[in-house]
Amino acid sequence: MVVTFGEIMMRLQPPGYQRLSQTKSYDAVFGGGEANVAVSLANFGIDAKFVTKLPDNPIGAACKGELARWGVDTSDIVLGGGRMGLYFCEKGASQRASVVVYDRAGSAVAMAKPAEFDWEKIFSGASRFHFTGITPALSDDMAAAVTEACIAAKGMGVKISCDLNYRKKLWSRQKAKEVMTKYMPYIELLISNEEDAHDVFGITAQKTDITKGEIDIEGYKSVAEQLADFGIPKVAITLRESISASRNNWSALLLADGEFFVSKKYAIDLVDRVGGGDSFGAGLIYGILSGMTSAESLEFAVGASTLKHTIEGDFNIVDSSEVHKLVSGDGSGRVQR
Amino acid sequence: MVVTFGEIMMRLQPPGYQRLSQTKSYDAVFGGGEANVAVSLANFGIDAKFVTKLPDNPIGAACKGELARWGVDTSDIVLGGGRMGLYFCEKGASQRASVVVYDRAGSAVAMAKPAEFDWEKIFSGASRFHFTGITPALSDDMAAAVTEACIAAKGMGVKISCDLNYRKKLWSRQKAKEVMTKYMPYIELLISNEEDAHDVFGITAQKTDITKGEIDIEGYKSVAEQLADFGIPKVAITLRESISASRNNWSALLLADGEFFVSKKYAIDLVDRVGGGDSFGAGLIYGILSGMTSAESLEFAVGASTLKHTIEGDFNIVDSSEVHKLVSGDGSGRVQR
Amino acid sequence: MVVTFGEIMMRLQPPGYQRLSQTKSYDAVFGGGEANVAVSLANFGIDAKFVTKLPDNPIGAACKGELARWGVDTSDIVLGGGRMGLYFCEKGASQRASVVVYDRAGSAVAMAKPAEFDWEKIFSGASRFHFTGITPALSDDMAAAVTEACIAAKGMGVKISCDLNYRKKLWSRQKAKEVMTKYMPYIELLISNEEDAHDVFGITAQKTDITKGEIDIEGYKSVAEQLADFGIPKVAITLRESISASRNNWSALLLADGEFFVSKKYAIDLVDRVGGGDSFGAGLIYGILSGMTSAESLEFAVGASTLKHTIEGDFNIVDSSEVHKLVSGDGSGRVQR
Amino acid sequence: MVVTFGEIMMRLQPPGYQRLSQTKSYDAVFGGGEANVAVSLANFGIDAKFVTKLPDNPIGAACKGELARWGVDTSDIVLGGGRMGLYFCEKGASQRASVVVYDRAGSAVAMAKPAEFDWEKIFSGASRFHFTGITPALSDDMAAAVTEACIAAKGMGVKISCDLNYRKKLWSRQKAKEVMTKYMPYIELLISNEEDAHDVFGITAQKTDITKGEIDIEGYKSVAEQLADFGIPKVAITLRESISASRNNWSALLLADGEFFVSKKYAIDLVDRVGGGDSFGAGLIYGILSGMTSAESLEFAVGASTLKHTIEGDFNIVDSSEVHKLVSGDGSGRVQR
Amino acid sequence: MVVTFGEIMMRLQPPGYQRLSQTKSYDAVFGGGEANVAVSLANFGIDAKFVTKLPDNPIGAACKGELARWGVDTSDIVLGGGRMGLYFCEKGASQRASVVVYDRAGSAVAMAKPAEFDWEKIFSGASRFHFTGITPALSDDMAAAVTEACIAAKGMGVKISCDLNYRKKLWSRQKAKEVMTKYMPYIELLISNEEDAHDVFGITAQKTDITKGEIDIEGYKSVAEQLADFGIPKVAITLRESISASRNNWSALLLADGEFFVSKKYAIDLVDRVGGGDSFGAGLIYGILSGMTSAESLEFAVGASTLKHTIEGDFNIVDSSEVHKLVSGDGSGRVQR
Amino acid sequence: MVVTFGEIMMRLQPPGYQRLSQTKSYDAVFGGGEANVAVSLANFGIDAKFVTKLPDNPIGAACKGELARWGVDTSDIVLGGGRMGLYFCEKGASQRASVVVYDRAGSAVAMAKPAEFDWEKIFSGASRFHFTGITPALSDDMAAAVTEACIAAKGMGVKISCDLNYRKKLWSRQKAKEVMTKYMPYIELLISNEEDAHDVFGITAQKTDITKGEIDIEGYKSVAEQLADFGIPKVAITLRESISASRNNWSALLLADGEFFVSKKYAIDLVDRVGGGDSFGAGLIYGILSGMTSAESLEFAVGASTLKHTIEGDFNIVDSSEVHKLVSGDGSGRVQR
Repeated sequence: MVVTFGEIMMRLQPPGYQRLSQTKSYDAVFGGGEANVAVSLANFGIDAKFVTKLPDNPIGAACKGELARWGVDTSDIVLGGGRMGLYFCEKGASQRASVVVYDRAGSAVAMAKPAEFDWEKIFSGASRFHFTGITPALSDDMAAAVTEACIAAKGMGVKISCDLNYRKKLWSRQKAKEVMTKYMPYIELLISNEEDAHDVFGITAQKTDITKGEIDIEGYKSVAEQLADFGIPKVAITLRESISASRNNWSALLLADGEFFVSKKYAIDLVDRVGGGDSFGAGLIYGILSGMTSAESLEFAVGASTLKHTIEGDFNIVDSSEVHKLVSGDGSGRVQR
Repeated sequence: MVVTFGEIMMRLQPPGYQRLSQTKSYDAVFGGGEANVAVSLANFGIDAKFVTKLPDNPIGAACKGELARWGVDTSDIVLGGGRMGLYFCEKGASQRASVVVYDRAGSAVAMAKPAEFDWEKIFSGASRFHFTGITPALSDDMAAAVTEACIAAKGMGVKISCDLNYRKKLWSRQKAKEVMTKYMPYIELLISNEEDAHDVFGITAQKTDITKGEIDIEGYKSVAEQLADFGIPKVAITLRESISASRNNWSALLLADGEFFVSKKYAIDLVDRVGGGDSFGAGLIYGILSGMTSAESLEFAVGASTLKHTIEGDFNIVDSSEVHKLVSGDGSGRVQR
Repeated sequence: MVVTFGEIMMRLQPPGYQRLSQTKSYDAVFGGGEANVAVSLANFGIDAKFVTKLPDNPIGAACKGELARWGVDTSDIVLGGGRMGLYFCEKGASQRASVVVYDRAGSAVAMAKPAEFDWEKIFSGASRFHFTGITPALSDDMAAAVTEACIAAKGMGVKISCDLNYRKKLWSRQKAKEVMTKYMPYIELLISNEEDAHDVFGITAQKTDITKGEIDIEGYKSVAEQLADFGIPKVAITLRESISASRNNWSALLLADGEFFVSKKYAIDLVDRVGGGDSFGAGLIYGILSGMTSAESLEFAVGASTLKHTIEGDFNIVDSSEVHKLVSGDGSGRVQR
Repeated sequence: MVVTFGEIMMRLQPPGYQRLSQTKSYDAVFGGGEANVAVSLANFGIDAKFVTKLPDNPIGAACKGELARWGVDTSDIVLGGGRMGLYFCEKGASQRASVVVYDRAGSAVAMAKPAEFDWEKIFSGASRFHFTGITPALSDDMAAAVTEACIAAKGMGVKISCDLNYRKKLWSRQKAKEVMTKYMPYIELLISNEEDAHDVFGITAQKTDITKGEIDIEGYKSVAEQLADFGIPKVAITLRESISASRNNWSALLLADGEFFVSKKYAIDLVDRVGGGDSFGAGLIYGILSGMTSAESLEFAVGASTLKHTIEGDFNIVDSSEVHKLVSGDGSGRVQR
Repeated sequence: MVVTFGEIMMRLQPPGYQRLSQTKSYDAVFGGGEANVAVSLANFGIDAKFVTKLPDNPIGAACKGELARWGVDTSDIVLGGGRMGLYFCEKGASQRASVVVYDRAGSAVAMAKPAEFDWEKIFSGASRFHFTGITPALSDDMAAAVTEACIAAKGMGVKISCDLNYRKKLWSRQKAKEVMTKYMPYIELLISNEEDAHDVFGITAQKTDITKGEIDIEGYKSVAEQLADFGIPKVAITLRESISASRNNWSALLLADGEFFVSKKYAIDLVDRVGGGDSFGAGLIYGILSGMTSAESLEFAVGASTLKHTIEGDFNIVDSSEVHKLVSGDGSGRVQR
Repeated sequence: MVVTFGEIMMRLQPPGYQRLSQTKSYDAVFGGGEANVAVSLANFGIDAKFVTKLPDNPIGAACKGELARWGVDTSDIVLGGGRMGLYFCEKGASQRASVVVYDRAGSAVAMAKPAEFDWEKIFSGASRFHFTGITPALSDDMAAAVTEACIAAKGMGVKISCDLNYRKKLWSRQKAKEVMTKYMPYIELLISNEEDAHDVFGITAQKTDITKGEIDIEGYKSVAEQLADFGIPKVAITLRESISASRNNWSALLLADGEFFVSKKYAIDLVDRVGGGDSFGAGLIYGILSGMTSAESLEFAVGASTLKHTIEGDFNIVDSSEVHKLVSGDGSGRVQR
């Protein structure tokens, strides 16, 4: 079983390409870095448990039900006070970027106390633990809870993965660096993109302008190496070339036990890019758990996350056979009859 | 010009009769006791200004735009920090009651400071000021702002109306009584229903069970008289008989300068009852401003609010001719070609 | 074959109970008095041809396609200049009446010339011809076309029915009386309601207030007798009691060859009342064509039009077995598995 | 834990009140007699397992996910060949009855073999087993599977309840009687309505015409007694008065250990009546499991199923506190803030 | 008149890019290889009759009505037992392929008997007959019916066209080859793509990988020649380069009376590719019937089918002037005011 | 304040990519050349007033409300007789062009008299006046009103801009040339594209085929120079390369006081191109009013109008910071968190 721990929010999004100022209705989906990883793993057939705190009201119940609907173990979700964190998201198109208005303050999980999570019980039967940089950014209590989780996991032989995922509206770079640095010794697999590595640790890839969509592989390799210097066995970097809000190129590299792997690159017509990075993490974890080689795991992860970009909602609702089919070369999009 | 002051929230409601736990999307409307009164008055052709504080983001802008769309003067709305208050609302049907999950804490208006509202400027050119018991319940600062507004209004010869509107999740009965009592000397027109009079001031109408839908006019007259004892010239009581979540009877009584008036009663098939009371208040104010007699004003107010119950959203989007037509006896619903 | 002749318009209606001032979209259906009769007859299995003139553009084509979709013979529809007549319609609820904003001026049919319709060809194989008072009201040319149609029909032994259907925005009462009076000698079956009989011919049913929803059968019998005095063998009067925009009582009476028949009365929860009268006419014609007795025809017509009130759109999409089932006593609404 | 066993189908229903012949889209929900009972029990907080066979394709997966979403244990659902049974359902209104077009032949469950269900494993930890007359009607194999289930349940001390639920398109009355009679000795709680008792066993309630909506309590008591004569301790009869497709009266009676109980009667404005009977059964089972008296159980069951009639979809998505609130007298539909 | 004969199914498709596992509703359209050809021809102004068997229920009626709506002659459609064949279709995007779940077993047409179709009557007044490889794959009875149709057509001088259209879930390659081979002597115009030619007859185009989207014209010419070796005067091959589920290149070649024609190639942003091949066939038949040269017919067919890819639903709802405009060089997509 | 004057219509558009012949509903937005400019300016923070005549009915009121909603001053809109002009618009895709069916005859504004507009009052406090070639094309009266407006503006020191915008269905090229020529002496800023310059004044850009999407800058410079020869200080030409209905390249050139400026070119995936040219005009006016250089103004205008192509509806709902962000180089479409 893989355990993930963090925040899950309601995303309120105008239908189609409407702006927030135009809409009369919102499509509502639930998602969050760690929940997305759990759902994707469950869809791959891996036992996955998501741990969080939700408000004890119909909105919290709807969220919990949605996780159960995709096969996630919700038995260790805490119910209680606080609200459902949410955000308004307007989908970009072509030269118009997506816009996000966060409204996550005061959420049940941000106000949770470390003692509400019983890690020994939670990790019983678990082989891996995953969290992202968003979880400790929510509050000092959540940062402390992550510390406790890491210690417990290590003690129980549970391997730990982390996606850096820096959120500037939640904490400063300085605070992020300070807190995240403490977790690094526990991490077996670290996932990042160039921006996050820079925002959290000040690590930079030379010659790359993320707003131009050009990729400099050598620069990214150097980022991975600097991250691995924390003593982390596996470091993965996702590489997004944003041509526009409608088109992205997507690939990744992996530094595993000193060896570099660079994936195939996909040119994607975007349906919904939220959760793209999370689905990469889930794909990588699945590859590792399934005994794939590092190269295979990386290709699986990039293929899985490519598919995520074509699916509405945060969750990567694909099974492993669909990913294998894409990775094995059929991206032609011919009808599956 | 009529000035109203208070909170406006986004209402997120599942389409049709879906429950909060079922829905994949929400219809979004804006509304609030005082905003609803301003919109209704503007639709009757009265200059109406709504004063509040909104978040300086696309959601706040959408709210302000919606008020402008219905002709409300938004020039004194303050923009700044804080979030948009919102609530999730599931529409009831037959024996199943509507359910409301509030999520209004931390809203821009609840966090506003009294000094942000310049009442001399706001009331310039105004003849009336209206607020409800929700505004002071939002925060001590807002309670103080209402006090300042009342003092300024009185000083400028602006008549004041108030709808008691008790919200138990915002403050205790004791606190409400303490605060609201202080406003009473300023009030020219007080609007209440039996529940609010009881919750705020402990005033009771004998022999009436609000869950049964039976009305005891004598009891309600006694409520009005007790409220008038604060020295208030005009007291109106709305009378709702809830047969079910789909059917209500609706009427009102008015105690004006010592004389009682009881309105016609309407049997309503409900479309959307949110804002029903507010539209009554707007109707009453319109009647007074238009020089109607007390009896005429009351009938206009009850007719206007009856129509509100048949309209989607908080706002009573009817013009005065539609109300006059109903009040003059045509509730047959024949097509207006 | 039954031939009907007249106008068909596009109805643009906000979804649900939204007002015209609120909506961001319109549901679009086609309908018109004579087209509605043709569609209903076709659904009963009767060959039915609708004759009109439509604009030669995609909107006209959509209209023609929709008629074909329900089995109506569209082979004599003229295509050419002019626009599609349309109207905006807001659905009422409870005490709020439906509102109609007509936008039919300049339609292809209103601008058609009598010579565009070849009645000998059109009536070939026909047994009955039906029109309403709307057709001649569209223009003097259309009034002339109706005259030509009546003469041709009479000459070819085709029986003629007419629904008075007065539209005050199209012509004056005086003009209506003048024109309609000329058609009366051709009519075998005349359908009216009290309002139309009064508006067109000044005929009144004593003691009845149509806005109160009370029915005085004796008064209506007198209306029917006055209409029959034009020398018309069969006169039917529909009786609508408008309790509200959501609830109507519906029944009818028939004066056939000097004998009176009064139908059962249905208490209807309205879905869409547009086309209710037309579906009554279609039901009556079907009854006559099917060899029912006068009493049976009347009950069939009232049953059919009761069902129309529960169906979205102008067209009465029911087959005869559904009507027979209702007429034979099962209005219980139990599921038909 | 309560185990239920049977068919679950996809219901395809046009939006709103559109007819099957008009619609361009379908709302899709899953439901079936036994699945509905399991979902309702899970929503009351009871462990509930639903057993069936589903097609091993995305449609079957969607169905299984939906059950999990509402808390039902799906671990004993068999996946394999066959299709998803489905039906097209058009919602009636007023005098127009709902129409159902079944398309359930060849479903995975109808083609399942008895050996695919391992009852010892399934009933492990179970206290009750529930099925309806639809399950054995699907195929001889399913009838045999029910027999095996009853034998296993009895052997393991699991109490059995059954809802007669006759479906004339699945089997003849003669076959139904023959098969159902064999199950009767196993039944502790039998649920029926007058129609089913008559269709399956030829039992009649005198003086009652189900299409008229009149109820004769004495007649129904006699039906219950005749059913109890099979040696069944508890027999419940649901009493539906169909005023129209929009309005029903709803109540029930219970004959428990020789004593009669008659429930309160609710006048319901219908939202969705599919699953109404199933929610009654779930309510009754919940009452029994919760240690309520017979009278309390009956009122709880009628209250629960009254609420079901106001909820979209087959599933009765209410918790027990909502039912208790209605049963304790508040059917006023006032907003729950 | 052109007669087409085959299956028509209901396509149930989630809105937008939702997956089958996510959707709560389905858009429903009707379509099938031969029906699509008939509708397209009718839209080009050609008399077109579609022959099939439909269930005698509201779903079958809706299907028949939809065909009539687009001008297709439905007078020889047989109504009777069996169900409506249907399939669930999820629209792909970018690297995610469309997914189809067939549910067509037991359809009315698959269970029809050859004697239900009276070919002498059906072909009266016909100049051409068209079918696809799906029709005989439905059942041995349908294969026999096609044989009878071919014999009758030949006898009446009706020219025959066929689209190979292999469906692996309906029959084996061996069976397909055996049956289709028998029809070849009757065929004047054969339409195929490389896949179908290979699947049915084992004919291969060297050097082409259909999942890569690369086209080898010479290889396809050899496929056409091998098909022509059956003695077929005209063989057309459609050439689809699947860049992704969102983008395709589309062209075709024609071998007519020994001469090769290769069309212009269109780069298409896909809206709905279902029915693309059928619209090509209709375009080719229209070109032939209109007296175009082979080169013109081919360009018309490719232009017509290019437009189909931009239209929702199976039917190619374009008139001939729209195709001519595209073929004559204006693919700029400028607004047609 | 900027004053704009002209027609505003309701656009009725099928959802998504549906054709006019397929749709059952229409999305409704309001728009028109001059109204679009006013809305865009108001969204940039400029006081903007739109002058027109609207029907005095709920449709006109909805239009006026929508303008107010986006901050436009509607106080000089005249209400009165006539209808709302409207048009049906089907959105193209890939090789299928958008189709427009106009239905604007008889609109309130087309039937307005010059005397209904009091230009001295309207221009009080204004610095600029803007109109397009559509306004005078509506009627001789509107042409006269524009003349009066130009004279009044010049007299009051209000600078005038004009977008040529030729509409062939409203007037002949000859009439357009005659009327527009008279306005030229008043114009400070003229906006055109190659087509309009040719249609109105017979001015041609050599070597450019607008249906091919190729742009010849030198040719366009010559067009600008020929327009400037009217004595106009600033002439802007928008350059659209229509690759397909889904993809356009978009840029512009400006001839200001004898100097040429050519903008950056954007490759756009289209969401809604209606109002693209208008948003360019608004951008240019904003640049001028904000004191930008000519080069900056041009880039701002092209950036603003690029964003318009990604927004649903006619109105360019972007603020100036969004345009500045795009112009300054970030067209990557990365999420704005």
